[in-house]
Amino acid sequence: MDKFKSLLTKLQSLHHENMYNNDFLLTWEKTDSEIHSVFVVAELLRRMRESNISPKIFDSGLGISLFRDNSTRTRFSYASACNLLGLEVQDLDEGKSQIAHGETVRETANMISFMADVIGIRDDMFIGKGNTYMRAVSAAVKQGFKDGVLDQRPTLVNLQCDIDHPTQIMADTLHLVNHFGGIENLKGKKVAMTWAYSPSYGKPLSVPQGVIGLMTRFGMDVTLAYPEGYELMPETEILAQKNAEASGAKFVKTNSMKEAFIDADIVYPKSWAPFAAMEKRTDLYGAGKFKEIDELEQELLAQNALHKDWECNEQLMKLTENALYLHCLPADITGVSCEAGEVSKNVFDKFREPLYIQAGYKPYIIAAMIYLSKVKNPVSTFEALIKRNKNRFLNC
Amino acid sequence: MDKFKSLLTKLQSLHHENMYNNDFLLTWEKTDSEIHSVFVVAELLRRMRESNISPKIFDSGLGISLFRDNSTRTRFSYASACNLLGLEVQDLDEGKSQIAHGETVRETANMISFMADVIGIRDDMFIGKGNTYMRAVSAAVKQGFKDGVLDQRPTLVNLQCDIDHPTQIMADTLHLVNHFGGIENLKGKKVAMTWAYSPSYGKPLSVPQGVIGLMTRFGMDVTLAYPEGYELMPETEILAQKNAEASGAKFVKTNSMKEAFIDADIVYPKSWAPFAAMEKRTDLYGAGKFKEIDELEQELLAQNALHKDWECNEQLMKLTENALYLHCLPADITGVSCEAGEVSKNVFDKFREPLYIQAGYKPYIIAAMIYLSKVKNPVSTFEALIKRNKNRFLNC
Amino acid sequence: MDKFKSLLTKLQSLHHENMYNNDFLLTWEKTDSEIHSVFVVAELLRRMRESNISPKIFDSGLGISLFRDNSTRTRFSYASACNLLGLEVQDLDEGKSQIAHGETVRETANMISFMADVIGIRDDMFIGKGNTYMRAVSAAVKQGFKDGVLDQRPTLVNLQCDIDHPTQIMADTLHLVNHFGGIENLKGKKVAMTWAYSPSYGKPLSVPQGVIGLMTRFGMDVTLAYPEGYELMPETEILAQKNAEASGAKFVKTNSMKEAFIDADIVYPKSWAPFAAMEKRTDLYGAGKFKEIDELEQELLAQNALHKDWECNEQLMKLTENALYLHCLPADITGVSCEAGEVSKNVFDKFREPLYIQAGYKPYIIAAMIYLSKVKNPVSTFEALIKRNKNRFLNC
Repeated sequence: MDKFKSLLTKLQSLHHENMYNNDFLLTWEKTDSEIHSVFVVAELLRRMRESNISPKIFDSGLGISLFRDNSTRTRFSYASACNLLGLEVQDLDEGKSQIAHGETVRETANMISFMADVIGIRDDMFIGKGNTYMRAVSAAVKQGFKDGVLDQRPTLVNLQCDIDHPTQIMADTLHLVNHFGGIENLKGKKVAMTWAYSPSYGKPLSVPQGVIGLMTRFGMDVTLAYPEGYELMPETEILAQKNAEASGAKFVKTNSMKEAFIDADIVYPKSWAPFAAMEKRTDLYGAGKFKEIDELEQELLAQNALHKDWECNEQLMKLTENALYLHCLPADITGVSCEAGEVSKNVFDKFREPLYIQAGYKPYIIAAMIYLSKVKNPVSTFEALIKRNKNRFLNC
Repeated sequence: MDKFKSLLTKLQSLHHENMYNNDFLLTWEKTDSEIHSVFVVAELLRRMRESNISPKIFDSGLGISLFRDNSTRTRFSYASACNLLGLEVQDLDEGKSQIAHGETVRETANMISFMADVIGIRDDMFIGKGNTYMRAVSAAVKQGFKDGVLDQRPTLVNLQCDIDHPTQIMADTLHLVNHFGGIENLKGKKVAMTWAYSPSYGKPLSVPQGVIGLMTRFGMDVTLAYPEGYELMPETEILAQKNAEASGAKFVKTNSMKEAFIDADIVYPKSWAPFAAMEKRTDLYGAGKFKEIDELEQELLAQNALHKDWECNEQLMKLTENALYLHCLPADITGVSCEAGEVSKNVFDKFREPLYIQAGYKPYIIAAMIYLSKVKNPVSTFEALIKRNKNRFLNC
Repeated sequence: MDKFKSLLTKLQSLHHENMYNNDFLLTWEKTDSEIHSVFVVAELLRRMRESNISPKIFDSGLGISLFRDNSTRTRFSYASACNLLGLEVQDLDEGKSQIAHGETVRETANMISFMADVIGIRDDMFIGKGNTYMRAVSAAVKQGFKDGVLDQRPTLVNLQCDIDHPTQIMADTLHLVNHFGGIENLKGKKVAMTWAYSPSYGKPLSVPQGVIGLMTRFGMDVTLAYPEGYELMPETEILAQKNAEASGAKFVKTNSMKEAFIDADIVYPKSWAPFAAMEKRTDLYGAGKFKEIDELEQELLAQNALHKDWECNEQLMKLTENALYLHCLPADITGVSCEAGEVSKNVFDKFREPLYIQAGYKPYIIAAMIYLSKVKNPVSTFEALIKRNKNRFLNC
């Protein structure tokens, strides 16, 4: 019990009551205390697993997943989190289902949820759509629970939408917390969230938007850098400004990658598509104008190609304060996965180990979000689990 | 224990010995007592889960699923049922498997069943094929068990075939039992099982066939209505007649939707394809005559279009005795999922909540079928589960 | 405990320390004692399950599967083995994942393994590729574990590669052990591993290579027969020769199926593609020469067709010592799955039951490989499991 004591005491001091029976859709809908609670619960779950104590709270139950975009790491992270807590993943594969037959969101959401405790959704392809879809699903199952259709309310975890990527950014930030030796040590650190060149098209905006939306809250000075024309959703830039003001930090925008890197403690160079272009694409899809979509793609690739110099390399890294390099992976690595990309091979190779460790927080972050949304009394349930002391793995 | 007592006493009074180590393929192969047992076990499982008592009887084991047609609700219902009892679903995806390489049913059935406790199959596309296939699989694994190839006999659950859709119709009927306050209150109720217009082609006949095959057994007066030419499999109409006679009820056929609705207590308007046409289609597939199949499809869609007036709307509902509207979902809703369909938006919206509740019985019906086919002493095993009192969800 | 005692005593006497925290890639990388340990553990797991004692050692954890070729029996065997031990299978479907986006093996291997205890891979299509890929994955996760990226080292199970098919051949051999009443009774038995005609193209070489690589180690005289031009990988033929010398047995090659069958106790007639042609195909794929690949296929099918007389039929079986017929299934059965194939219907039908029993060992062999790679003290862990005496299936 001793090694969990300080974390449990910390958790006891935080407010997380409103997370119970609730979704996790955007980090900025959560209080600082709630964000902090996710970190503490993630660490508790990780230490329990490492100590071979099972944190399984479900004897049965389903964790539904719906991936509207390809995914390896998020899919496996979600599966790991569900499995750790005792939920079996059941994938809603829209190809195999009758959704194509014209079901409404409301109906499908209820039909799959009779024994579902949690629903994880990735829907990041179209601006204005993903988060909206998640809220429609959430409203449907809340109503179903209220009407007595569902015995329990399945809570939602946003596994990446058009606006935010909370499981990723929370994992990134927990990595920073542990790297810098505590959440209080983040204060004053300088983060460079910068665009980077990629030969591919239409990369989601949710990572940079999520980063400026969350990291500005811990007193970190965040610089957002991108070439002209690569704006994010305007409301996320406004939000970042407000967060920074509230936490006594700075939020600065620039069109120079170099400027962002100077004296940075953390750099996060990552490609994304321009917001305005993605909005246009969504409209074209809606109108079924596929020829125009192809033309837009060609335009954007040509536009990207003007900025091949936005590469994170050793020269740029020298401008930093021995910065930690972050990426959500997979990265476009120059000379490895593409001719010219987001990061040079040298820089990537130097940070491979911390990058993998960064990614390793995601299953625990997801599990913590599920735990806090399902468990009414997080501290006493942890105490019961530790007292139960069931081995995750029997090895006598 | 008290809240389960009357159900356990009821279960004790019923005969279900022959369900042990047996399949559930057609409702009319089961005695009234066996049908009743499924309802009682489904209710017991539901109340246990709602009371946070786990009914998990398997510590490990596989529940095989084989879906030869798209499915959302049945797939998730089967997954929920297996998970609740402790079985892990393993999907036999014929695309990914070597079945295409020319394996026999007998061989495949055994190869996937070494640790399988139950096999659920949906095979509803071709008249004369689905149920036959299920029996071939059942015979194969029975032989495998007898020969010592398999340590246990996997029992089969029909998740919809060309003849019957027992998990659906049993869920529908349990909904009626609870809606009308007891199985004995079904006596004398008037059911209108009617065809309805749909702009789609080739909808299975198993739902109307299953409804007239089962609901005639509880003393309910069943009227089957369809436009000329939309006959069901003749043997199911004959069966319904016999069932009605045995239970002292009426089974009436008509070509008027209106006539069926007059004074009805329950209406089940649902599209299906004409039996003769589906038989012809099966033959054309067998002969590889794909051009002729396309022509048949066009003919049938044109034939459907002659009957757009077969729509369940408020005008028709006024003829009923304040009837309960049933549908297996998804429904073709006029102005929502299609221009003209099976049901008007008004009627559908009014019954959305009971429709979702109706669907919610399916996981428990499937779990009950599995339970009764695997457990030798259903009552004493329930008593042991209740005494064990393991939480489904630990929330201290 | 008594019925497990002799097996536990046997296991105690064997050396399996080096299997702990290790992969199972090729049988010839394992000592005789280790091979023997797998058989003993497989039998223990089988008897425990038959005695309704759960051998579940994992409370949670993932068993990753990666199938780069279609599979039914191996997929279900792996799923059964993982489930029996408490691991949930999570399939890495390269179509659904971002691997196509250019990820490196090293990165993907780590990203999916944060909570993975075991990884099973089937990669048998290209000579020189499959086993190499497995070693790359293994090296990646070993490094990840060493670097602290992974909390545990996922161990690998080769579910078929270009060189060996250890889970198949170990299951085949355990079938022989039980058929002949003990591993010591294999000594002196004559095995005919022969090519057989198939109308299909490009069948893997791993089964015959695995058979001559393993069965030569138990003092069995192995005759390898194939038409001129159907050579195996040269190193596996050399290995078989060495193994035979070490075990005091004979390894003989011939171009006559008849010669191989004379006085055989065991016959394993099975089609495969010529090694040189498969090497050529791999090169053509590498060079993207798809027209040449089609031409090669036509050539090879024509070459196969010259040897339609290589069919296992009753006439040939009469030459044997009442031999046991083996096949990894599915077999090409003359007049059943093809016009002319590997085996006549009569012979196949006669051996159907033992063939299915042969296949039934595979889930236990895989579970034994996992068990020995994860459990530090196999004997004392078995003793704890037997003492725990948890039912696999509760049936009061």
